[in-house]
Amino acid sequence: MLIPEKKQYNWKAIIKAFETVVGKNGVVQRREELITYECDGLTSYRERPALVLLPRTTEQIAQIVKICNQYSLPFIARGSGTGLSGGALPSENSVLIVTSLMRQILSIDLDNQRIVVQPGVINSWVTQTVSGAGFYYAPDPSSQIICSIGGNVAENSGGVHCLKYGVTTNHVLGLKIVTPTGEILDLGGQIPETPGYDLTGVFVGSEGTLGIATEITLKILKTAESICVLLADFTSIEAAGATVSDIISAGIIPGGMEMMDNISINAVEDVVATNCYPRDATAILLVEIDGLDVEVQVNKQRVAEICRQNGARNVTSASDPETRLKLWKGRKAAFAAAGHLSPDYYVQDGVIPRTQLPYVLQEIEALSEKYGYKIANVFHAGDGNLHPLILYDNSIPGALEKVEEVGGEILKLCVKVGGSISGEHGIGADKKCYMPDMFTPADLETMQWVRQVFNPQGLANPGKIFPTPRTCGEAANSVSIKQFPGVEKF
Amino acid sequence: MLIPEKKQYNWKAIIKAFETVVGKNGVVQRREELITYECDGLTSYRERPALVLLPRTTEQIAQIVKICNQYSLPFIARGSGTGLSGGALPSENSVLIVTSLMRQILSIDLDNQRIVVQPGVINSWVTQTVSGAGFYYAPDPSSQIICSIGGNVAENSGGVHCLKYGVTTNHVLGLKIVTPTGEILDLGGQIPETPGYDLTGVFVGSEGTLGIATEITLKILKTAESICVLLADFTSIEAAGATVSDIISAGIIPGGMEMMDNISINAVEDVVATNCYPRDATAILLVEIDGLDVEVQVNKQRVAEICRQNGARNVTSASDPETRLKLWKGRKAAFAAAGHLSPDYYVQDGVIPRTQLPYVLQEIEALSEKYGYKIANVFHAGDGNLHPLILYDNSIPGALEKVEEVGGEILKLCVKVGGSISGEHGIGADKKCYMPDMFTPADLETMQWVRQVFNPQGLANPGKIFPTPRTCGEAANSVSIKQFPGVEKF
Repeated sequence: MLIPEKKQYNWKAIIKAFETVVGKNGVVQRREELITYECDGLTSYRERPALVLLPRTTEQIAQIVKICNQYSLPFIARGSGTGLSGGALPSENSVLIVTSLMRQILSIDLDNQRIVVQPGVINSWVTQTVSGAGFYYAPDPSSQIICSIGGNVAENSGGVHCLKYGVTTNHVLGLKIVTPTGEILDLGGQIPETPGYDLTGVFVGSEGTLGIATEITLKILKTAESICVLLADFTSIEAAGATVSDIISAGIIPGGMEMMDNISINAVEDVVATNCYPRDATAILLVEIDGLDVEVQVNKQRVAEICRQNGARNVTSASDPETRLKLWKGRKAAFAAAGHLSPDYYVQDGVIPRTQLPYVLQEIEALSEKYGYKIANVFHAGDGNLHPLILYDNSIPGALEKVEEVGGEILKLCVKVGGSISGEHGIGADKKCYMPDMFTPADLETMQWVRQVFNPQGLANPGKIFPTPRTCGEAANSVSIKQFPGVEKF
Repeated sequence: MLIPEKKQYNWKAIIKAFETVVGKNGVVQRREELITYECDGLTSYRERPALVLLPRTTEQIAQIVKICNQYSLPFIARGSGTGLSGGALPSENSVLIVTSLMRQILSIDLDNQRIVVQPGVINSWVTQTVSGAGFYYAPDPSSQIICSIGGNVAENSGGVHCLKYGVTTNHVLGLKIVTPTGEILDLGGQIPETPGYDLTGVFVGSEGTLGIATEITLKILKTAESICVLLADFTSIEAAGATVSDIISAGIIPGGMEMMDNISINAVEDVVATNCYPRDATAILLVEIDGLDVEVQVNKQRVAEICRQNGARNVTSASDPETRLKLWKGRKAAFAAAGHLSPDYYVQDGVIPRTQLPYVLQEIEALSEKYGYKIANVFHAGDGNLHPLILYDNSIPGALEKVEEVGGEILKLCVKVGGSISGEHGIGADKKCYMPDMFTPADLETMQWVRQVFNPQGLANPGKIFPTPRTCGEAANSVSIKQFPGVEKF
């Protein structure tokens, strides 16, 4: 028995149709091979797809999507599957369109600072491709050595360097997409601003609900002449938070500005042993400064001075690539290290206005005590993007539910202080129930009308982003989708 | 007779309804007062509105729009009326909603670098409001001392400083809008990225077709420690163009980088007498460098060196505010000065990839010779945003049509080299016929479906952006809007 038994779909005909497009090798249907695709980086939700397809071209994706429409088959695009909000979670009887064979760099135009790539290209390959010529691609999620550009576009991914340079949407000039009905569209262009509605902007971060990007035109930046990383350690979270605000207030925009708390510091020292992070610090700040050498020298002094004014015990810095890498190593390994602290961890992603950092961190500490779970804090401090890691043991019955409750409380706290329920991981399957905490029914309705434009049958990545009554219970009741004139409720 | 006689509208009832919302003084209906509102900055298109309304609050605009829906009255929002593409051009039997009484700064949050303003607030007031505290608002159209933020949002306005800092859409964090059906929506938020579809991004630049912004949350930036303006003069356009490319290739992103040709130079010297621009130069470049003082000093030398390497005859610079202002004065007055060169001028707005500058300028010169019209070139060279000013005499029959033809040829040239038909002035009424040159029918159809979501009756700024058969003749035939499922063709 190769495929799930579902009477309502004529799988034999469907598989034959897909095989004519991508060949026998392009259709994965063996149960044991499909297990790999049951979830993405958010492992707490699982659903096996009916089939996995491996296209190589835009045209093949368009044909696949047309077949899906013909048979009313839901389809979900998947890049490397590193997403943390379940954006690539299959739905029942769905087809997973995996872009891992679409890994070509299609063109490079250094003079105009742009590069065109297929969606399966790995994030760090972009920089590797152009670094010899003195360029780089700015958005750098922690998973950059494995995550794909297509997935980055879907989730509007961020990273350490997005404080100064902006998240993915600020680096996508144009897109070729296959719409949920199988049409090929070109959005945006080769230059930063095009007239008409900014559909490129709508598509980036739409988590696969508006179609599949098959060619992506990215902006690349000139590598800075000089880069310096400072490490400052503090005996209080408040002091580290105030330092972040003071650095920005001084008009300095670091390339990146990250904070780690004591739990995270000890976790990474246990696991990767950077031997740089003082284990007794309450918090450390990593501040990367880039620019002209003269500029970096001046800003290095200014940042160090601000750190000291706020009570930093030690401030060290590194300009050579090797030591810089060492300073960053612990931060990059923080999520993985958390896995060594407890059997399981739940990573949250929320955003707050920078000035609310000290208050929100206090409240997270209070939640930790109230619920009895340790919470490690690792985050993009400069842009107020928090990543609390809630440590728990999934073998204890009811623990996941409890931890999700803590995660929900943190998100509500973010909204309360004027922030957001996601900074860079997306809403996916995981957070759709919290959308009504952030948006009014009218706001959500408008977004869903836009979805309806692209995705009339609702086949593209169903059950993501927007709350649905089946899974979100009460939350969804507040979002009654007004009938789009003459269109069936979707 | 106070209002246009149109039997199909019950103007008496309509006016009464509007008066209950904005009072008698808020309804302008005298023919002689309405003349002012017949056009915006694009004076070649004119149409008198039936009424002009002067609301003061979001709630009043929502009520006005609901009345318009009740009576199927088209409505057009207007700020200061400085737009150059006819975006605020009234349509027949329309109501103009003018935001000039909505000029309050609603809140200022310096710590988080944001300010909330009403749409009628003048662009330069934003900087004036926060400059004492060391901040400024980056987008700076030439009309900044008179144009409104609401208009800037509608047209996604640019300016000299948008090379480094981005156009309006990069500075709008959130919006309160009244939709074309009279609902009040909050788009975006107080932080740079919010989850769900980026409707803020769609709204900015939608030229009033998706609703009216009534509260706008803007990002403000820290004023640079040091600013320096360089003036370089060249004996060839190609050399000036190559200099622009070389500066960017060197990894320097100037705050602004503007080019003016010989015609423009002499025009501004005749009119505002800066006594700075050499009258015999084929082209001048103005390069503004901002940042830390040490950084500016280094980059000033590097830019000067690149100018000289490309054959600049003279390179001068100014760091004190007074001399800097003097160097900029001519550039800022260039459009006005063109008015002294000939009875009329037509300003075009197109974008090209930076590397195509020398080729495109040659082609524009060829068009000038072919059609027999002088063309002055003033433009944002750094981002390839051209503003050719075609000089003509409107009293000669057929001249305007001919000049529009030249303008059209320039736009087609921009598209041919991978550019765009508008950099910052918008499409409005003026350029909608060229949209099919830039977008496929499927692209345009998708945009119009999005419009349909917000603007189902088509009452909000009808006849803008998208080609219509009545006015665009053949061009429109290539854009057959596929029926939105179950929705009347719009």
